[in-house]
Amino acid sequence: MEAAIAVLVAQFKAFAGADGSTDTLSKGEFQNLVTSQLPNLVKNSADPAVIEQLMSSLDQNDDGELTFLEFWQLVGRLANQHGGFSR
Amino acid sequence: MEAAIAVLVAQFKAFAGADGSTDTLSKGEFQNLVTSQLPNLVKNSADPAVIEQLMSSLDQNDDGELTFLEFWQLVGRLANQHGGFSR
Repeated sequence: MEAAIAVLVAQFKAFAGADGSTDTLSKGEFQNLVTSQLPNLVKNSADPAVIEQLMSSLDQNDDGELTFLEFWQLVGRLANQHGGFSR
Repeated sequence: MEAAIAVLVAQFKAFAGADGSTDTLSKGEFQNLVTSQLPNLVKNSADPAVIEQLMSSLDQNDDGELTFLEFWQLVGRLANQHGGFSR
C-alpha cells in the first residue's frame, strides 16, 4: 500500500505546485487534477458547475484552496462509492 | 491516480475478507494489514498497545470493526504527516 499512497501524495503535489505552493490546490489546479487523474471516478468534470460544487463541498474553511486532507476526503468518498462496499 | 486508488481498495478488501465480510477490518485483520502493508508509516505495529490505540482512535462507532472510510482517515493522516506538507 505504501507505494500507492506515495503515488497519490506525489500527484497531489505535482498538480498543487502548478502555481506556487505545493501544499494546496486552487480551483484551476483541482479541475486539472480531476479531469486528468480521476476521469472515471468523477463524471462531467469539464462542467465548471460540477467542479464548483465539488470544491465547495470539500473546502471546509472556505478559503478557495484545498489542502491534502480536504482532497483526501473526496478520494475516500469516491473510492467508497465505487468500491462496492455494503457499509 | 485511479490505479493507485484501486490498489488501496483491493488491498483493504483482501485483508478485510480474511474472516468473513470484505467490508470491515477486525482488530486482527487491521494488525495484519498495518504490519505487512504500512511498515514504514506505522512504527511498532507489532506492539498490541499501538494497534489497540490506533484502532480505537479510528473506530468512530466503537463496534470493534473498521469500515473503509474509517481506515481511509488513518491513511490520510499518515500520508499528510509523511508528505511534508506545511499545512
